[in-house]
Amino acid sequence: MKVVVIGIGLIGGSFARDIKRLWPDSTIGGIDSNEKHLKEALQLGIVDKKSDYTDLTTADMVIVAIPVDYLVTELPEILDACGDETVVLDAGSTKRQICEVLAEHPKRRNFLACHPIAGTEFSGPSAAFEGLYEGKTNIICEVEKTAFKLQEKALELFQKLKMRIRYMNPVAHDKHIAYVSHLSHISSFMLGKTVIEKEKNERDIFDMAGSGFESTVRLAKSSPDMWTPIFEQNKENVVETLEEYIANLEKFKQLLLNDNYAEVYSEMNNTNRIKQILKGIPLTKSQS
Amino acid sequence: MKVVVIGIGLIGGSFARDIKRLWPDSTIGGIDSNEKHLKEALQLGIVDKKSDYTDLTTADMVIVAIPVDYLVTELPEILDACGDETVVLDAGSTKRQICEVLAEHPKRRNFLACHPIAGTEFSGPSAAFEGLYEGKTNIICEVEKTAFKLQEKALELFQKLKMRIRYMNPVAHDKHIAYVSHLSHISSFMLGKTVIEKEKNERDIFDMAGSGFESTVRLAKSSPDMWTPIFEQNKENVVETLEEYIANLEKFKQLLLNDNYAEVYSEMNNTNRIKQILKGIPLTKSQS
Repeated sequence: MKVVVIGIGLIGGSFARDIKRLWPDSTIGGIDSNEKHLKEALQLGIVDKKSDYTDLTTADMVIVAIPVDYLVTELPEILDACGDETVVLDAGSTKRQICEVLAEHPKRRNFLACHPIAGTEFSGPSAAFEGLYEGKTNIICEVEKTAFKLQEKALELFQKLKMRIRYMNPVAHDKHIAYVSHLSHISSFMLGKTVIEKEKNERDIFDMAGSGFESTVRLAKSSPDMWTPIFEQNKENVVETLEEYIANLEKFKQLLLNDNYAEVYSEMNNTNRIKQILKGIPLTKSQS
Repeated sequence: MKVVVIGIGLIGGSFARDIKRLWPDSTIGGIDSNEKHLKEALQLGIVDKKSDYTDLTTADMVIVAIPVDYLVTELPEILDACGDETVVLDAGSTKRQICEVLAEHPKRRNFLACHPIAGTEFSGPSAAFEGLYEGKTNIICEVEKTAFKLQEKALELFQKLKMRIRYMNPVAHDKHIAYVSHLSHISSFMLGKTVIEKEKNERDIFDMAGSGFESTVRLAKSSPDMWTPIFEQNKENVVETLEEYIANLEKFKQLLLNDNYAEVYSEMNNTNRIKQILKGIPLTKSQS
């Protein structure tokens, strides 16, 4: 199998590592605008060689794992360059704009719109690891627009990676993902900001922080290059989630100011239901 | 060594397990208002026998790990009942009110005000495990008010548990802990609430959630019995942190509404400094 991975970071690199493990005879070409990352990926053996868009015409599979603003500009060119038998997958955290941009592309049938719900707060080729996708959800949008044979090729990969597949339309994807992913990132970034601002002159204070704090601000380590365009493309949904979140925080603050601790208790008690919900979420294995 | 643990949950039970490991000849008595927990702790071998306050007079050490509202009412009685050579430790997440209540107690010298920064989102005796405290910070307040010999006894325990000790006054403790612990819990509870409310009729949506969401809402599993009185006792500081957090979220929302993505980028980029800060925080080992 001939594969080209465009964007050799955590996501693209982890796909490359698993493909190499599952298909040892495959050749994996890498394309990355960051020369340092490309060199690193070659050194780490994540990709076999440096590729360019002229290699796409003979590729069986092209995995595009770049920030969502670049997906919008690059995917049309990638499809222009790919062959008739090439399946092009993306891994973007937004789906509406990407699907809109490609809607009328003559090679739309070669594209499968994907969002693998997997990752860590780290980035770059050195963050990539085997098994990242095992047990994770992969959301596929507009599957009916992809040629049947090319769907099959991609699904074989996802099946071997032991991913669970969910089909969804791009508008619904963007709406719901704002709640279960994008809002978490903002809540975490702003929590980190609030604490850093307050304690900037008292670094020893972080000795007081425990694993609870670490867990809630973990996502504040995430890459601004990746997340700024996600928030831009999903602005409308993200703003809506933020408004609801702020309203809930404001209400909680008012309960404290009114000494209404019965209601404070009840707010927390009702949210404890999250325990059952979280049981269904597969955790990311460590890289060790 | 004769030890009595009052409140045999995650915190008290984990102390009991480690004491048993470090001093195999010790006898550990247990007191808990929850009969089911007490029975469970006996069955699990966390405590050797059921105790009551008449046992405190001969105890070498009394560890009080109960919600902070009960600490305020019970600690005076516990000190009344303890012997001259007994050191009484608490583990409350607030310190000001507790230290105030005990300020004039005739046996104030028998009390050491402690806040071990350790725990998980689980509770009850079955959540207790050996090694919870290893590498964790223990904040001790008003150490000068505790008899020197009794300080020594407690510090020997903390040293054997490999805890790192920080001394702080109770007012500073409550102010800073609001930022690095209490606010995280509210941010997590309200994030869980926002998502559950929105998606209550679409449970499948949680298939879309990944480990990032899991991490940010983990603390929303915490016990309302423990947390309501913490927020009550630390209301003033907690409200202040909440106001700053809400203002930061509001500002971020406005940047999105104004399409000011350069500033959105910069907000996240500045907060990425949290990486360095988090390196210093010891993670909780798993129970396995």
